[in-house]
Amino acid sequence: MNTPKQNCLTGACPPIISRNMHTIKLSEGSGGREMQSLISEVRKRFPETSAWNNLRDDAATFPIGKEKHIVFTSDSYVVTPIFFPGGNIGKLAFCGTVNDLAVIGAAPTGLSFSCILEEGFSKDEFFEIIDTIASLSKQTGIPIVTGDTKVVERGGVGKIIINTSGIGITKHILSDPIQVGDRVIVSGGIGEHGTALLAKRFELESSIETDSKPLHEELIATGPFIKQAKDITRGGIAAILNELAEKNDAGIAVEEELIPLHDQVRALTEILGIDAYSLACEGRFVCITSPKNAEKTLSILRKFNPSASDIGKITNEKNVTIQTRYGKTLLAVPSGNIVPRIC
Amino acid sequence: MNTPKQNCLTGACPPIISRNMHTIKLSEGSGGREMQSLISEVRKRFPETSAWNNLRDDAATFPIGKEKHIVFTSDSYVVTPIFFPGGNIGKLAFCGTVNDLAVIGAAPTGLSFSCILEEGFSKDEFFEIIDTIASLSKQTGIPIVTGDTKVVERGGVGKIIINTSGIGITKHILSDPIQVGDRVIVSGGIGEHGTALLAKRFELESSIETDSKPLHEELIATGPFIKQAKDITRGGIAAILNELAEKNDAGIAVEEELIPLHDQVRALTEILGIDAYSLACEGRFVCITSPKNAEKTLSILRKFNPSASDIGKITNEKNVTIQTRYGKTLLAVPSGNIVPRIC
Repeated sequence: MNTPKQNCLTGACPPIISRNMHTIKLSEGSGGREMQSLISEVRKRFPETSAWNNLRDDAATFPIGKEKHIVFTSDSYVVTPIFFPGGNIGKLAFCGTVNDLAVIGAAPTGLSFSCILEEGFSKDEFFEIIDTIASLSKQTGIPIVTGDTKVVERGGVGKIIINTSGIGITKHILSDPIQVGDRVIVSGGIGEHGTALLAKRFELESSIETDSKPLHEELIATGPFIKQAKDITRGGIAAILNELAEKNDAGIAVEEELIPLHDQVRALTEILGIDAYSLACEGRFVCITSPKNAEKTLSILRKFNPSASDIGKITNEKNVTIQTRYGKTLLAVPSGNIVPRIC
Repeated sequence: MNTPKQNCLTGACPPIISRNMHTIKLSEGSGGREMQSLISEVRKRFPETSAWNNLRDDAATFPIGKEKHIVFTSDSYVVTPIFFPGGNIGKLAFCGTVNDLAVIGAAPTGLSFSCILEEGFSKDEFFEIIDTIASLSKQTGIPIVTGDTKVVERGGVGKIIINTSGIGITKHILSDPIQVGDRVIVSGGIGEHGTALLAKRFELESSIETDSKPLHEELIATGPFIKQAKDITRGGIAAILNELAEKNDAGIAVEEELIPLHDQVRALTEILGIDAYSLACEGRFVCITSPKNAEKTLSILRKFNPSASDIGKITNEKNVTIQTRYGKTLLAVPSGNIVPRIC
């Protein structure tokens, strides 16, 4: 190979900063500000469509007949390690796609399962993952209906990568307008998935398990009482509250002491110097209800998870604030490499 | 790390063959017999569903209302190199999913685009791929409606991996019963995608480009005249003819001299010692028509591609045979590592 001769004195040397700016960065997949910016650059290039309603969320809807909508979503999973306390990559993939449909108000109808396997990957581990998905499919009645399998050379992808896409059907898209004073409710303790992953990676002692679970039952039960919902994934509750605020052109004010946080999540994130509010969940959602329906919504959610909590309200301030014991401060969209390969 | 002490004389040494059998092999992603066997093992574990009709194809269908069906499909793309003569990984991903819908008889309604990017991947290359997809989306009117972006560490996946899933709608699923004597038609020259990829990998001189293209127009135009169709991908025409024969519990007899093969595909596959019939296409399909409709189907297909050819017929022999100048022989399902990372 010929390496071109470079002479920095004459300006022939490419500027290093500019080259770095033109490559993909880990932070662009972390669920925070950099990822939103990359996704928005991609979206701008794709032609718009009037047939589909893309809610600026992780799913799109398409009307069928007079009363129903198809809901369509897709997610890839690159988590490492692929087995962790309380679950594995298969559980994440199944639940993640079910949840993306459920927060739109859809009953999940069928999922696809595509996997990219690395040559040499243990078949016992592979079939353990398949059996986890099969058992969730049986338990929820949501079938796996199509898929794809690729195999790549050793060192190609790190054991297994999964994509699950899903279709749901709904009569009512959970996308009602919100008002100042509406309540913001979280369905359970936050950051447990991220904490379980980190504890496993750093071999820290902990009994925290991933919170990964299918949320469609909670959302079908609370559907009539809530206006909007969003599952908490990459970027944690901080990212999701900011997305909800921005999407609705509104503000959100939450109170730190009302945000449910397991003692071990608090302890481990303090040890690791990581913000629990930026840490991924895989089985929690935030919903917005009228003040009138807040108590009813909470009482339903608490049957599924006693930690469900009314954490704050919609404001007209166009930002997300958190009331701590030291005063009120902004809860910003996370940025930087929060935790790679978390989901 | 402690390496356990092994004593092969006492039998404590694990048998090498058995260990190899319990890991994923490259051949299990090649589109041939080993892949079919792995997929069938996975399918057996997933619960069955009566709501969906999975045609043992790359797509599943679900009835909506009295007259229509949703068609749903998903595919991952791991091709290397990601740019090749006539296209790139984005073109493959867009066309592959459109084609999986089109061969069921569906008008593609919307696609998802999920990508896994490697830290350090060139943004210029990334946006060239995005622009290819955007331009195909504009040209076909098939929108990208949802998606997902993950970023992994350097060395994690090799630049970019894409998953596209898709939804189509059809009134008539292309799945009519076939009869002995029905004609088997291929929509154009075969093996051109695989040859273009190999020529690029081995730096061989050739003007062959990938055949990757969206097939929905050809299939919408021929839909009323054909009984079944299947796009030719991994495993080439050999795999697809065997799949069609097995699915229909029938046989297929084709004639070598009728199979359209570009001179350079013939030359390059001979140089490389690769069977052209096992080599992937990304923009060709095989369809089955009644003898009465064969001429009409051919004349439509030839408007899209003059190489379209009636290559043989359905038999009652439950195998696939090919008549060569040396006599009639079995055209077997490919096996082994045909060509990895071809799509």
